[in-house]
Amino acid sequence: MPDYQAPLRDIRFVMNELLDYPSHYARLPGGEDASDDIVSAILEEGARFANEVLTPLNQSGDREGCTFEGGEVKVPSGFKEAYQQYVEGGWPSLAAAPEHGGQGLPPSLAMVLSEMVASANLSWGMYPGLSHGAMDALKHHGSETLKNTYLTKLVEGRWTGTMCLTEPHCGTDLGLIKTRAVPLDETDDNGGYAISGTKIFISAGEHDLSENIVHLVLAKLPDAPEGSRGISLFVVPKFLPDASGEAGERNGVSCGSIEHKMGIHGNSTCVMNFDSATGYLVGPPHKGLVCMFTMMNAARLGVGIQGVALAQASFQNALAYARDRLQMRALSGAKAPEKAADPIIVHPDVRRMLLTQKSIAEGGRMLVMYAAQLNDIVESFEDGEEKTRADTVLGLLTPIVKAFLTETGFEATNHGVQVFGGHGFIQEWGMEQFVRDARITLLYEGTTGIQALDLLGRKVLMSQGESLKVFTKEIHKFCQASEGSEFAGPLSELNREWGELTMTVGMSAMQDREAVGAASVDYLMYAGYVTLGYLWARAAATASAALAAGEGDATFYQAKLDTARFYFQRILPRTQGHAAMIRAGGETLMAPTVEGFGSGFEL
Amino acid sequence: MPDYQAPLRDIRFVMNELLDYPSHYARLPGGEDASDDIVSAILEEGARFANEVLTPLNQSGDREGCTFEGGEVKVPSGFKEAYQQYVEGGWPSLAAAPEHGGQGLPPSLAMVLSEMVASANLSWGMYPGLSHGAMDALKHHGSETLKNTYLTKLVEGRWTGTMCLTEPHCGTDLGLIKTRAVPLDETDDNGGYAISGTKIFISAGEHDLSENIVHLVLAKLPDAPEGSRGISLFVVPKFLPDASGEAGERNGVSCGSIEHKMGIHGNSTCVMNFDSATGYLVGPPHKGLVCMFTMMNAARLGVGIQGVALAQASFQNALAYARDRLQMRALSGAKAPEKAADPIIVHPDVRRMLLTQKSIAEGGRMLVMYAAQLNDIVESFEDGEEKTRADTVLGLLTPIVKAFLTETGFEATNHGVQVFGGHGFIQEWGMEQFVRDARITLLYEGTTGIQALDLLGRKVLMSQGESLKVFTKEIHKFCQASEGSEFAGPLSELNREWGELTMTVGMSAMQDREAVGAASVDYLMYAGYVTLGYLWARAAATASAALAAGEGDATFYQAKLDTARFYFQRILPRTQGHAAMIRAGGETLMAPTVEGFGSGFEL
Repeated sequence: MPDYQAPLRDIRFVMNELLDYPSHYARLPGGEDASDDIVSAILEEGARFANEVLTPLNQSGDREGCTFEGGEVKVPSGFKEAYQQYVEGGWPSLAAAPEHGGQGLPPSLAMVLSEMVASANLSWGMYPGLSHGAMDALKHHGSETLKNTYLTKLVEGRWTGTMCLTEPHCGTDLGLIKTRAVPLDETDDNGGYAISGTKIFISAGEHDLSENIVHLVLAKLPDAPEGSRGISLFVVPKFLPDASGEAGERNGVSCGSIEHKMGIHGNSTCVMNFDSATGYLVGPPHKGLVCMFTMMNAARLGVGIQGVALAQASFQNALAYARDRLQMRALSGAKAPEKAADPIIVHPDVRRMLLTQKSIAEGGRMLVMYAAQLNDIVESFEDGEEKTRADTVLGLLTPIVKAFLTETGFEATNHGVQVFGGHGFIQEWGMEQFVRDARITLLYEGTTGIQALDLLGRKVLMSQGESLKVFTKEIHKFCQASEGSEFAGPLSELNREWGELTMTVGMSAMQDREAVGAASVDYLMYAGYVTLGYLWARAAATASAALAAGEGDATFYQAKLDTARFYFQRILPRTQGHAAMIRAGGETLMAPTVEGFGSGFEL
Repeated sequence: MPDYQAPLRDIRFVMNELLDYPSHYARLPGGEDASDDIVSAILEEGARFANEVLTPLNQSGDREGCTFEGGEVKVPSGFKEAYQQYVEGGWPSLAAAPEHGGQGLPPSLAMVLSEMVASANLSWGMYPGLSHGAMDALKHHGSETLKNTYLTKLVEGRWTGTMCLTEPHCGTDLGLIKTRAVPLDETDDNGGYAISGTKIFISAGEHDLSENIVHLVLAKLPDAPEGSRGISLFVVPKFLPDASGEAGERNGVSCGSIEHKMGIHGNSTCVMNFDSATGYLVGPPHKGLVCMFTMMNAARLGVGIQGVALAQASFQNALAYARDRLQMRALSGAKAPEKAADPIIVHPDVRRMLLTQKSIAEGGRMLVMYAAQLNDIVESFEDGEEKTRADTVLGLLTPIVKAFLTETGFEATNHGVQVFGGHGFIQEWGMEQFVRDARITLLYEGTTGIQALDLLGRKVLMSQGESLKVFTKEIHKFCQASEGSEFAGPLSELNREWGELTMTVGMSAMQDREAVGAASVDYLMYAGYVTLGYLWARAAATASAALAAGEGDATFYQAKLDTARFYFQRILPRTQGHAAMIRAGGETLMAPTVEGFGSGFEL
């Protein structure tokens, strides 16, 4: 069975040494509660919960899966008890506002915990994870009545949430949704609606973990404008609250079936049927997409974290195996002559795979925690220059976090299988589960292709490149400040090229709108590699300073510096392929005819 | 359920138009039987068998899997009947020699058929596939008695074969094997041995398809030298032949369990226990590794074919979905205004994924059939210059076929999932099965890392680059002959760089043996991309000529030319990342300490 130890040393490095979270928390309204001691205690307790409670249920949950019978979903053995412990530990309320029963700690703290949870047990972690999206939507857009009725229960963890967007004929293209919301007659004095339609791919849509399930549902009102401007957001509970606010009468929403999937077997993926189910409007009519993006942006960061989490979990197990497994001698001569063969970690190609995993997991963690800091500011600062800047950079980084960290996270889990050789393919070792679980992260909450269009089209080009400049200027300043370091030169060159590539695509897009889609995924990957390069250069500077000062654990700092060097020499060159593909333009993509594609087997 | 149509048009293009198989077959000893009519009839009949018999069993085989009870393995429903049809159709004997009951057709014909079989049903195809390895070993190294006893039955298909190499503590490092072979006493006048030991990961090691199973087993004799020079090869049947040559008394070999795996659920992966099982030496004592490589080289080509096969199957289904699924409007304006949205094939990023799949599948097929031609020559020509050259180039290309076509094949199956969006993750659609099945191809018969060491260390550097020059000279000549074409310039430049990179690594390796392993996988991928570039350039030249002549189906030829252009502009630039990583050397790989790797979570 695979093992997991929360990477507390690395988390502390990122939070305390690299990104100065103590000062950051001190500046946040209410952030004084997040003192060093409190943060440290929470991280350690979270690590214990992940390591001891969730890890042992990961493989069994995958094997057992969810079962569906008579409209009810049963989660795998042990999941319910773990959820009970989670609620009793007060984890759901960590970052919620005190007025809704929360502990008022910064959202970033919940994010770092969610990495540990996802490393230990992705399927389990999705149940509370979905609640966070529902909480965000209600917090920002719900009426006081809705907050008091639903948000407080979600914060408590006694009720869980979902996001109901996708329908059989539409996922990306939500303008096509068919679910309808009709105002209830005047006898309903709560302003309710009757919601009817079918939603698919609803994660945690039905299960036996909580007393009630609160669905956030996209639907169209009778007078809705066509397309995506005519979508409204509703809250639809599984059980309607009774007079005391507890789960009461069954509502007209039910689970029709659950999907059989490649991975995340422990999480129920449901077809949800709404049959004149009572729902309540969240936010203004026809403004559902805006409200949904409140959930969606947080969810996208959350999925990026899952990519990091699985890279980390796979890395740790691959490392343990590589130290243990004896096979062949090092080409430069025996390293463990007393043994039958050398441990495979002596072989350069095994090291290449392990360092790729390490640089993705640790680099991804830096990016997540960098974005989490911006998110804290956006969530809790008053309007002003700093909040505007944070919002701009966070908007730019969100699709990168989501897509780049899941693409590279998936790659990392595959390296984990490869380090194990044939054993990696065997379920017992658990390495292939990381791959199967990771595969969904490239798809849900918007595929890589959708994230790439968001980044290049919406965030970069629609602002005429201004939002990008805010970020590249920061990189530029760092390079200037560390001029002469081994990282500043190459990073500065890539940063310059990033701007140039943006110009190139922008110019093409003026003549041909398809140029954006043709370049978008390569552009996103390019952006991701450079962004991680910036953070690895900063990490190297921090580690070098600590080594020079002779402070702390030299093994850790030296490994950090070594990994930064590996990243610069053996990962960053991937940008050159992407740059060439961006420059190549879209002609070769658009030229082939639809008939031509299939001519090899259809003729 | 996914569909499959054998790509007969493309196969004919590769065989008849690109590689002139008709002339090739005419030159082979006995090749006169492979007339155009015969080849055509065999391809069509093979396609029918794959499409109609094997495809419908692929998904059901995955779901049902193999079952193990009381030492017996039951294959999924329908597999046995399909195998019966296969035997009755005479397929196992296609490329076997007439003196052993075969039809004497060229091996390349069996290879193109094996692509169809693997596209339709990889798990099923592995049962007859493993027999081919056993046949090869017996044909080249078995005594006349062994050939008469075992080979004829394998050719008939009534018995099947296996390769028993791996043990729990060793896969790559066969020098460590513990299985022992002790000569039976003098009462055994057949020169038998008692074989004892445990083998794992034995594909098709036990099943209910055939009357007998013939294991080819690596073991050590009592007087064996240490390490890989002390290994011998034995044939160990499940049932010992009786006086009439039929399956008789049960031998001391049994299946201990079967593995639960990520994919290829329909193929049994067995732990085989040899308990003083009677076996017979194949080839000279202690020369088992050499004999095994006869099986292994063919098996490696076979696994490369599997990569192509799964890329093709995934591509076809992704294409059908992309034409059918309506989602969003093209950025340049509606393409199907009469529909609710445009089919997703209008979107450039969807086209990028489809063209990547197409260029991998069709490019891979060209490489396989190019290698198959060399293999025909090696298998049937008398010693001489042409055979020596073919053997050299085939040796160079075998690790590329195996590793590059499985790495890119796996990538292609992942694009197939991605084109389907969330639906790609759902088992019902079958796209995720291609990914799970493809994942093994990067591992078995030698991982990508092992292939890369074989290519760079054994094939290229050990010959002082001479074997590479034979092939790059061919590319050079092609570029010269097509000077001025849009492909010749870029290809020529890459071909030159390939030589230069080889020099660079060769020089480093003289000072540091680890330089080979540090560069090897990037070198293999680089080599693979350039090799496919050469074949795509040739395909483009052939297609352009046909278009200019106004012959045949212009849709097909134009698509071929379009795909070549896509490959050159959007795939070949990946070489630049690999080149930079090769040039970076191994320092950043070897610098990190073993303790440093884990310092983020262990400290």
